[in-house]
Amino acid sequence: MALFERHVFVCQNVRPEGAPRPSCTRDGKSELFAQLQMFAKAAGLAPQVRINKSGCLDQCEHGPTVVVYPDAVWYGHVQAEDAEEIVNEHLVGGRPVARLRLADECVNTKSCPHRG
Amino acid sequence: MALFERHVFVCQNVRPEGAPRPSCTRDGKSELFAQLQMFAKAAGLAPQVRINKSGCLDQCEHGPTVVVYPDAVWYGHVQAEDAEEIVNEHLVGGRPVARLRLADECVNTKSCPHRG
Repeated sequence: MALFERHVFVCQNVRPEGAPRPSCTRDGKSELFAQLQMFAKAAGLAPQVRINKSGCLDQCEHGPTVVVYPDAVWYGHVQAEDAEEIVNEHLVGGRPVARLRLADECVNTKSCPHRG
Repeated sequence: MALFERHVFVCQNVRPEGAPRPSCTRDGKSELFAQLQMFAKAAGLAPQVRINKSGCLDQCEHGPTVVVYPDAVWYGHVQAEDAEEIVNEHLVGGRPVARLRLADECVNTKSCPHRG
């Protein structure tokens, strides 16, 4: 297979102090990204699966956000300690992690009941 | 529709001078990104279509690269002056731009006959 089987985009956006919308990272660096990469590598997923840095995914109120294509599965409020479960369940097992999913009705909205 | 109908990732990666692999942008800024955003906005595509900055898409030898999900259509060697055609043909018209497409067999390879 030449194309990526799954392409995972991890928001790295950082906004200036006091900006009206929140940031996905504090300083453009993301332990979540590093952990996803590390677990994906450990699972032997490269090069079919790529963990990618991305700019603002425009779901700032639900960040840190991650989107997995071509599935178009969105995760919200993801923490570094969630990385292993995303890799093992979704990227290896093909089962999106229900507890971390951003509900469809939350995407492109400013508020969302997801994880409080 | 809550999710993005199309999500366009535009590589903004920049490597240090003398790096063994080429960069998609010279300084992390991309006229291609700005033009895609401008034409998408002019076509009234937001918020169903998002033009997104991305980190390295790992297709450096074919850059600047753009990938459109969930279609998983890859474009290579894309210039700012190609933005209008990508927006009008692909994002509005649903017809990927054949002359800019990265052939499936080029993805994840270091050389590719695409556009020389």
